[in-house]
Amino acid sequence: MPDPFAALRHELAVANRILSNEGIIDAFGHISARHPTDSSRYFISRHRAAELVEPADILEMTLDSQPVHPTKVRLYSEMVIHGEIYKARPDVNSVCHHHAPAVLPFCSTGVELMPLFHLGGTLGGKVPFWDSRDEFGDTNLLVRTPEEGASHARALGPHFMLLLRRHGASLAGTSLRECVFRTIYSTRNAEIQLRAMAIGTLGPLSAGEIAKCGGHNLGARGVERAWEYWVTRLQKAEAMWVAAGLPRMQRLAEVGRPRTAGLPQARRAPARGAASAKKKAGAKKR
Amino acid sequence: MPDPFAALRHELAVANRILSNEGIIDAFGHISARHPTDSSRYFISRHRAAELVEPADILEMTLDSQPVHPTKVRLYSEMVIHGEIYKARPDVNSVCHHHAPAVLPFCSTGVELMPLFHLGGTLGGKVPFWDSRDEFGDTNLLVRTPEEGASHARALGPHFMLLLRRHGASLAGTSLRECVFRTIYSTRNAEIQLRAMAIGTLGPLSAGEIAKCGGHNLGARGVERAWEYWVTRLQKAEAMWVAAGLPRMQRLAEVGRPRTAGLPQARRAPARGAASAKKKAGAKKR
Amino acid sequence: MPDPFAALRHELAVANRILSNEGIIDAFGHISARHPTDSSRYFISRHRAAELVEPADILEMTLDSQPVHPTKVRLYSEMVIHGEIYKARPDVNSVCHHHAPAVLPFCSTGVELMPLFHLGGTLGGKVPFWDSRDEFGDTNLLVRTPEEGASHARALGPHFMLLLRRHGASLAGTSLRECVFRTIYSTRNAEIQLRAMAIGTLGPLSAGEIAKCGGHNLGARGVERAWEYWVTRLQKAEAMWVAAGLPRMQRLAEVGRPRTAGLPQARRAPARGAASAKKKAGAKKR
Amino acid sequence: MPDPFAALRHELAVANRILSNEGIIDAFGHISARHPTDSSRYFISRHRAAELVEPADILEMTLDSQPVHPTKVRLYSEMVIHGEIYKARPDVNSVCHHHAPAVLPFCSTGVELMPLFHLGGTLGGKVPFWDSRDEFGDTNLLVRTPEEGASHARALGPHFMLLLRRHGASLAGTSLRECVFRTIYSTRNAEIQLRAMAIGTLGPLSAGEIAKCGGHNLGARGVERAWEYWVTRLQKAEAMWVAAGLPRMQRLAEVGRPRTAGLPQARRAPARGAASAKKKAGAKKR
Repeated sequence: MPDPFAALRHELAVANRILSNEGIIDAFGHISARHPTDSSRYFISRHRAAELVEPADILEMTLDSQPVHPTKVRLYSEMVIHGEIYKARPDVNSVCHHHAPAVLPFCSTGVELMPLFHLGGTLGGKVPFWDSRDEFGDTNLLVRTPEEGASHARALGPHFMLLLRRHGASLAGTSLRECVFRTIYSTRNAEIQLRAMAIGTLGPLSAGEIAKCGGHNLGARGVERAWEYWVTRLQKAEAMWVAAGLPRMQRLAEVGRPRTAGLPQARRAPARGAASAKKKAGAKKR
Repeated sequence: MPDPFAALRHELAVANRILSNEGIIDAFGHISARHPTDSSRYFISRHRAAELVEPADILEMTLDSQPVHPTKVRLYSEMVIHGEIYKARPDVNSVCHHHAPAVLPFCSTGVELMPLFHLGGTLGGKVPFWDSRDEFGDTNLLVRTPEEGASHARALGPHFMLLLRRHGASLAGTSLRECVFRTIYSTRNAEIQLRAMAIGTLGPLSAGEIAKCGGHNLGARGVERAWEYWVTRLQKAEAMWVAAGLPRMQRLAEVGRPRTAGLPQARRAPARGAASAKKKAGAKKR
Repeated sequence: MPDPFAALRHELAVANRILSNEGIIDAFGHISARHPTDSSRYFISRHRAAELVEPADILEMTLDSQPVHPTKVRLYSEMVIHGEIYKARPDVNSVCHHHAPAVLPFCSTGVELMPLFHLGGTLGGKVPFWDSRDEFGDTNLLVRTPEEGASHARALGPHFMLLLRRHGASLAGTSLRECVFRTIYSTRNAEIQLRAMAIGTLGPLSAGEIAKCGGHNLGARGVERAWEYWVTRLQKAEAMWVAAGLPRMQRLAEVGRPRTAGLPQARRAPARGAASAKKKAGAKKR
Repeated sequence: MPDPFAALRHELAVANRILSNEGIIDAFGHISARHPTDSSRYFISRHRAAELVEPADILEMTLDSQPVHPTKVRLYSEMVIHGEIYKARPDVNSVCHHHAPAVLPFCSTGVELMPLFHLGGTLGGKVPFWDSRDEFGDTNLLVRTPEEGASHARALGPHFMLLLRRHGASLAGTSLRECVFRTIYSTRNAEIQLRAMAIGTLGPLSAGEIAKCGGHNLGARGVERAWEYWVTRLQKAEAMWVAAGLPRMQRLAEVGRPRTAGLPQARRAPARGAASAKKKAGAKKR
């Protein structure tokens, strides 16, 4: 019986590897996607560095972050970050959690992240902070219990990015690719902010600019163009892996094909042949 | 019928990939070249990350940034940046637009870019700013309408580099390779300025030094030496791509051959065989 | 006769190459591991850049840092760093010494390293300083004599990381993989501290958080996940080497298999077949 | 007739590529070596990026920086940097000139470079400045005339590193490998100084420490260990080039063999077979 979620598993594995290849996630951090047809489920890798995640590593979880199918494999200890956001935010279909070096200085100092260029507009008008100490006192800083996960989701509120004091960042998207896009460009924006603060006074986007930028950049055009770029860079990086005699991820060469961001992948599966043919003939202007 | 612009398309595709490989352009940004014999036309890629641009992606445009040949492929939304500069500046034969991380801190703070070493002299004596807010209020920051494009070109004035507040940079060159050279070394200069401002007081080039540096560095000698270097680095980077079983760009190994910077490529096409033979025999001192 | 320390030699060679590949050690610096069954011996490479260390380069030393088996090969001049820590600290089974660019600014200024995120918690509550000038006056800064080595070990005291003024850092671990983990994440923490100090006031972990983070992160789960990641990155990097016709390190593809951090490798050798089979079937949750 | 300088040409080409691969030289910059038996001659590449220099590109020059054998190939415009230092400093057998991004901030601000760790001790007790404006007014900043070259050599005086205001750095060594070592580690030291100045007050080496460090680090042990490391990294980087079907530099795999730093290469040529055999048997401790 063919796996109805094969395309989704593959797409999520590629997202993991892109975030590793782009320097956002190292051995730690994770990204998930909500089930395309059952909003009470989500998919996430087993306990493994994103660089290595394969489609077979992707597991189905309840929103209480329990595996739908019993398993003996190790699981991430912070899955409640994902499950509790999915509970609180029906509009969110993908969640990412990371500790990128450009974002940590903000988590350490409490300096606010501000959108400094149109692509940074994707982080939105406000990036709130969450401090585990406020409700839970001294912990190992990981978000592990349902209570911690719910508190973390409340701090995110209606926003799409949250900074965790002394820990990292969590991001949300209406689709997997949008979440990857926001994760990468909010990190690029953080990098620019670090450097800009060293030479002068920041001139951030206005509220009106943020609203207009967010709208444009998260449209299918920009997200797909960036996705094709990141997949290409990943293919180059993995070429070395293949050269070393290690297995390449199944069908990686195909992942660049255009898809409508925001739509869960599984729904698109039947259209793949058509989409692929359309691509060869030249993508339509939309 | 052979394509009379094959050499130009190839050269422009290589320029795109060099700017990506050197870290100037990521998924976004673009470079164009004016038509070698019809000054009312220019060439630019379809909507695609520079890393991936192939000769077949290069399209011919009017100076109103409309495709000369009707097409269904997606187009960049900011082509007026190119068309309006070509209208305003007959001396300009190539335009580049990017959001390099070393340049964005200046776009965010309004700190002026200054030439700090001889190769940075290529950015000229003044790098003006353009702020879309001044004439157009809150926008998504992209330069999309003819009015915005014309305003942007007026801000460039007689200069060769323009900083866009909260957005990026636009550069001009009398030839494609000169434009690539200026784009890369102005970014390297920005990088140095960021670091120098952190430790002391800048001692920029004098007006006389800028004039003399600009003249020397944009001569054929320096531009060709740098072009051969960037092509070599690109070849190494794309070797990984080829190893992954992906197509290499047609005739990439040839692009390093000497050409006179500043002359449109198409005019040189008949001389290729001779130029290639000359190269093997050892390039003449000029 | 098979070498009873083959697995240990291999593991230590991989640790060397990981630290080079991750940008911690360049031509200089070294890592050692205590003998798994004889606590009066340790293993370390001959005088060679970590990038190049092979299993055959690993030599057995007394705690006085003399080779157990007479040899004519060149030896590191700073081996007393290792031997004297093993003498003073029975709980330590691995020592690393390096000059990572992110750590040197602290060694130059005397600014204290502080744990800024949970993974940085691995550097512990205090990172003391040692200054060779205090006891030995002007030297070439290397730690070469038994007296210098003993002074350096006293400065480490009960801690796991020591900064050497105008020189570098030394780290200790209860196992080889833990030492690699601490070395890499303390350097990542230093990188974050450098950037955070440029934009605001540091908010470091509390004493309670440090204690809880250290405990969690140095458990087998996190260390093994990171080890698999670093080995994968090493494999990609060495693929280029292999492509150049150079020898790949023996059995490198195997090093990613799970092992219990903290247990010397030689004891695990008999279990290899079983461990490998278990891995294929999916690692147990523990 | 075999070329008596084949080994030297090869070694100098490797030095060029190492300096490019290590990020010191980009399209511009150069390194030379004095003739091993005729002190009135030196060797340097024709006008070409260091990344691409091949043994056949190496030309023999008089100390007036004129080619010994008439040639039509392009030459570097700044060769007097090399020739005039060789005239003024009989102890110098190699000269390098570069514009590394970590060094340029010092050239722009006039902040003094200081040795901050033992390997940085190689830059010596003082790094003087030279400003072309002092004697020559506004120029294009390049050192092109014999008078400019002589002024530049006078500014170097008895030292081994010189900073050129608004331009770059020039370095000298008693051997080619020592010059490469000093060039790379002085740049690493500059990188550390930039970062250290951002967080605190520098605590540089004392005069006594500088003297002792310089002596040790430039001994054959450290220089050879670093050379083997840099050659290995170059081999990995060029593996991609080879994979792209481009020619690898002749005999590159051999360059890592131990040689006594400070001795011109041509003298060692007869001993190559023996040296190679000795290496396989394990290098002697000296």
